[in-house]
Amino acid sequence: MITVYGYPYSGNCWKVTTILDLTGVLYRWVDVDSNAGETRTEAFLAMNPNGKVPVVVLEGGEAVTESCAILCHFAEGTRFMPPPGLARTRVLEWLFFEQYSHEPYIAVARNIVSYLKQSEAQAARVAECQRRGALALDVMEQRLAGHDWLTDFGPTVADIALCGYTQAADEGGFDLARWPGTREWVGRVLGLPGVTALPRAGIANPRGAG
Amino acid sequence: MITVYGYPYSGNCWKVTTILDLTGVLYRWVDVDSNAGETRTEAFLAMNPNGKVPVVVLEGGEAVTESCAILCHFAEGTRFMPPPGLARTRVLEWLFFEQYSHEPYIAVARNIVSYLKQSEAQAARVAECQRRGALALDVMEQRLAGHDWLTDFGPTVADIALCGYTQAADEGGFDLARWPGTREWVGRVLGLPGVTALPRAGIANPRGAG
Repeated sequence: MITVYGYPYSGNCWKVTTILDLTGVLYRWVDVDSNAGETRTEAFLAMNPNGKVPVVVLEGGEAVTESCAILCHFAEGTRFMPPPGLARTRVLEWLFFEQYSHEPYIAVARNIVSYLKQSEAQAARVAECQRRGALALDVMEQRLAGHDWLTDFGPTVADIALCGYTQAADEGGFDLARWPGTREWVGRVLGLPGVTALPRAGIANPRGAG
Repeated sequence: MITVYGYPYSGNCWKVTTILDLTGVLYRWVDVDSNAGETRTEAFLAMNPNGKVPVVVLEGGEAVTESCAILCHFAEGTRFMPPPGLARTRVLEWLFFEQYSHEPYIAVARNIVSYLKQSEAQAARVAECQRRGALALDVMEQRLAGHDWLTDFGPTVADIALCGYTQAADEGGFDLARWPGTREWVGRVLGLPGVTALPRAGIANPRGAG
């Protein structure tokens, strides 16, 4: 069986368990808390020299890193990844958009505000994350105001990737009422059979002690 | 013929022209300078709502964005993108690493230092970019100290993507002598038949007026 090393409140880790749940792949879960330094231990860095969760260890022992690469790995050959060509390229555009223009602002704002609880100590950084995160949500809204999914191919890993932190954007100070098409889309992604929402900050670890 | 909208000094745009040159795809080039606001015009935003170069307009008129998605699009079916499976996943890991952990520090440091010339005005930001960019180069060096290419499958879009800004890291204050395996690998990538190095800051636009 594969093993997922992750943090239950991480949207990046949520992407991984979501594609596994959607495609019926069984996995073992191991808790790793990056805010507590657990991604910087020697054992963890041997799996991922970049010191980040999620990491998936395959049955052959190979460690796979980068949440969006993991999404593509497990989606290959399923309805969540279109075949090569422009259809697949549209999905990849959104995956790279997520990692470059969305996650660094929306996830980071959430971590500072709701996990580190340093909204005041890091006020300038939070403001910058909120400004740039809003621009990312504007781009999503342009698409989602008139479409059910991010690409024309039904729900794909693009939707899973972007939903990862968009569903928790309010925990970083974003009010999704400003992006109503995006808010409805979050409901559609979370309504897919087999999908469980990311847990809210402050509730007990839903996966137990790991 | 396809059209590439880009900035000749951008490593992200270099990735695009490099895969096109390596695979023998002809293209028309149009100059767009993001530091001069040319990615925020109404016409440009109609092509890419996220307001970034590169953009490739295909023969059918579809605009494709995100440098790494463009790499994957044109590499599909060539030696620069392995078939689906762990081989391809290894390439994707590096592409997402590049966009999340490398480009935001190494490219941004270079832009501030060598293009905006604001090393002093933005000293704290440059220092943070140099700290985190060095961590990214450490991760690359772990691989490249003992291997010719980033993955086991010969030169791929992973090497093209990471070489984009690594070849110009010195313009952001990084001395590649500290990462000798990486420095040698840059030479290998730039030595591939058909590859032309990214132009240096301060020389005349090598593509002319666009």
